[in-house]
Amino acid sequence: MEFNFEDHPHRRYNPLTNEWVQVSPHRAKRPWQGQVEKIEEEKRPEHDPSCYLCAGNTRINGEVNPQYTDTYSFQNDFAALLEDVPTGEMNDGNGLFRAKSERGLCKVICFSPRHDLTIPEMETEGIRKVVDLWTKEYTELGARDYINHVQIFENKGSVMGCSNPHPHGQIWAQESIPQEPAKKQENQKAYYDKNGTTLLSDYIAQEIKQQTRVVYENEHFVAIVPFWAVWPFETMIVPKRAVSRITDLTEEEKDAFADAYRSLTIKYDNIFEVSFPYSAGIHQAPTDGEDHPEWHMHMCFYPPLLRSATVKKFMVGYEMLANAQRDITAETAAARIREQSLVHYKSAVL
Amino acid sequence: MEFNFEDHPHRRYNPLTNEWVQVSPHRAKRPWQGQVEKIEEEKRPEHDPSCYLCAGNTRINGEVNPQYTDTYSFQNDFAALLEDVPTGEMNDGNGLFRAKSERGLCKVICFSPRHDLTIPEMETEGIRKVVDLWTKEYTELGARDYINHVQIFENKGSVMGCSNPHPHGQIWAQESIPQEPAKKQENQKAYYDKNGTTLLSDYIAQEIKQQTRVVYENEHFVAIVPFWAVWPFETMIVPKRAVSRITDLTEEEKDAFADAYRSLTIKYDNIFEVSFPYSAGIHQAPTDGEDHPEWHMHMCFYPPLLRSATVKKFMVGYEMLANAQRDITAETAAARIREQSLVHYKSAVL
Ligand SMILES: O=P(O)(O)O[C@H]1O[C@H](CO)[C@@H](O)[C@H](O)[C@H]1O
Ligand SMILES: O=P(O)(O)O[C@H]1O[C@H](CO)[C@@H](O)[C@H](O)[C@H]1O
Repeated sequence: MEFNFEDHPHRRYNPLTNEWVQVSPHRAKRPWQGQVEKIEEEKRPEHDPSCYLCAGNTRINGEVNPQYTDTYSFQNDFAALLEDVPTGEMNDGNGLFRAKSERGLCKVICFSPRHDLTIPEMETEGIRKVVDLWTKEYTELGARDYINHVQIFENKGSVMGCSNPHPHGQIWAQESIPQEPAKKQENQKAYYDKNGTTLLSDYIAQEIKQQTRVVYENEHFVAIVPFWAVWPFETMIVPKRAVSRITDLTEEEKDAFADAYRSLTIKYDNIFEVSFPYSAGIHQAPTDGEDHPEWHMHMCFYPPLLRSATVKKFMVGYEMLANAQRDITAETAAARIREQSLVHYKSAVL
Repeated sequence: MEFNFEDHPHRRYNPLTNEWVQVSPHRAKRPWQGQVEKIEEEKRPEHDPSCYLCAGNTRINGEVNPQYTDTYSFQNDFAALLEDVPTGEMNDGNGLFRAKSERGLCKVICFSPRHDLTIPEMETEGIRKVVDLWTKEYTELGARDYINHVQIFENKGSVMGCSNPHPHGQIWAQESIPQEPAKKQENQKAYYDKNGTTLLSDYIAQEIKQQTRVVYENEHFVAIVPFWAVWPFETMIVPKRAVSRITDLTEEEKDAFADAYRSLTIKYDNIFEVSFPYSAGIHQAPTDGEDHPEWHMHMCFYPPLLRSATVKKFMVGYEMLANAQRDITAETAAARIREQSLVHYKSAVL
């Protein structure tokens, strides 16, 4: 019997985070008797008078949303990070009790005034406006003295803790570099210092040559299931040019980014013919005033669904306590995403 | 305005993992409009003929469970790790494509033949038998040549991906040291080499002195919400003596462990008067043949509930992409757990 990655349990290494994932390809076959998610595919109105993100509506704090026509951003009414925090620090008991104050702010980014849409149902031009707003926010927030990191992200679907189906994302900007980007920075820096190229340029060059994990590609961007993916249908969208931050993208590249984001999410929706839930976000250079040539920006998608529209992967017990674990290989997942049509299942029916 | 940890956003440091958690105490006040979990509190029979864990029943692979009277363990019929894996390795593309075969095995541990019980509803003597089985499994599995790590854990509740309410846990034993214990080993080793004491003995000594995060204590064990807790009601049960592994516990300490496990989970159930879901597991020395005096064993509990029996904390978007984040402080959570009765809400009603 010879070892092969499609059939035998193995571990794969993530050079961006310096962590391993346990892969158990044979396990996809086990029967599922556990919790199933409910799918709410109710048809939503274009404007919902009770939605706090729709244009013209009044939010919980009394503020009225403008009659916006494409995108709109505002400061989160229940922000996890606050600007007005006194400085404080603790380092007690031989370094076992360490804490420090943290300043920051949280914004909500409405992708469209249309309450009934999602990214894969929007036109590329509309998504391009989202990319432009991200660029503007990254610039403005990052320009603030005390903001060293800007995390752009989107929670899609109630299974991902999203409490409002209106198409929107969030930005949390803060003093410290959070854990995940800090790890990626460290490993990209070591690679760049050693090789003089970004880790991700060398990586995607090989992925594009091999094609097995590529799910979508246009002139300037490639979408792949990373070799070290953790979530069943995890992907990342990477610019082909080594670009450290969204503000370094050319106009043409921004269009290509919008196209890749749309195309990938259409394919996602088509897998189970359901609005595919995920958390997604952009990892890029911090706004700490340094140059960061080692950083190669990329957008990560972490979707929880595993077997069907209602059965997700539970990252529990072993995964929480010991090690990330997946039940299908990155190659199987990539083939499944790649084969999906670029026509959204809903529009195809019409 | 002076900084204080009860009101202002801050970060806390976890010396066991060398990671930070973002704490946003003020955020507990935001309204919740998102997904709610369903609670199934149906009364279960003592024996369920369709349950594959009940005594005397036939499992999916045709094997028949014995008429066990206390605990029972068997190899998982759909194991993520397999014993019979050919050896293989890959290290391609300048270290960007690394993988290796992984051998191991997965066991299921039935805590009791009673289908209708959970740990907090069992007697201490019954739980002590679970501790004994864990000890036996750790010894036997760890004695195998190729097994360097034994992860004992429990997923409780369907929200934690548990597909069968019959009281049970799992053990995944394998060749490699998984990520989480590897991190803890590294940091405990550095601390031990520097100070000559285990990190956790020094830590719990201070916690016991301060009492603010202690939720339960008996002669040999203490249960605390760690200063750096991530999950809303996260706790850990720690032996007061610096013990590296479950096999080093004395008979008396094993009784005290069973008592702490029972007492903590009774308090958990009493918080929202619901069977409190969690993933729990024991972190202890690997079975790699080394002595590991730096390891101080402990059992971690990661419960997802936040505000009520139906509203959990979603570790999504920001948390997945950037940094672990919590909405109430460890001290508030600890006070809430501590004040709960040691009489289970169900038995109190009778
Ligand atoms: O108990 P099961 O069905 O083996 O599976 C459950 O626990 C495992 C170990 O934590 C996870 O990998 C699965 O995602 C979860 O559904
Ligand atoms: O969108 P909301 O309501 O702010 O909140 C959601 O996203 C946040 C950022 O990922 C998480 O901290 C919350 O747990 C989740 O419910």
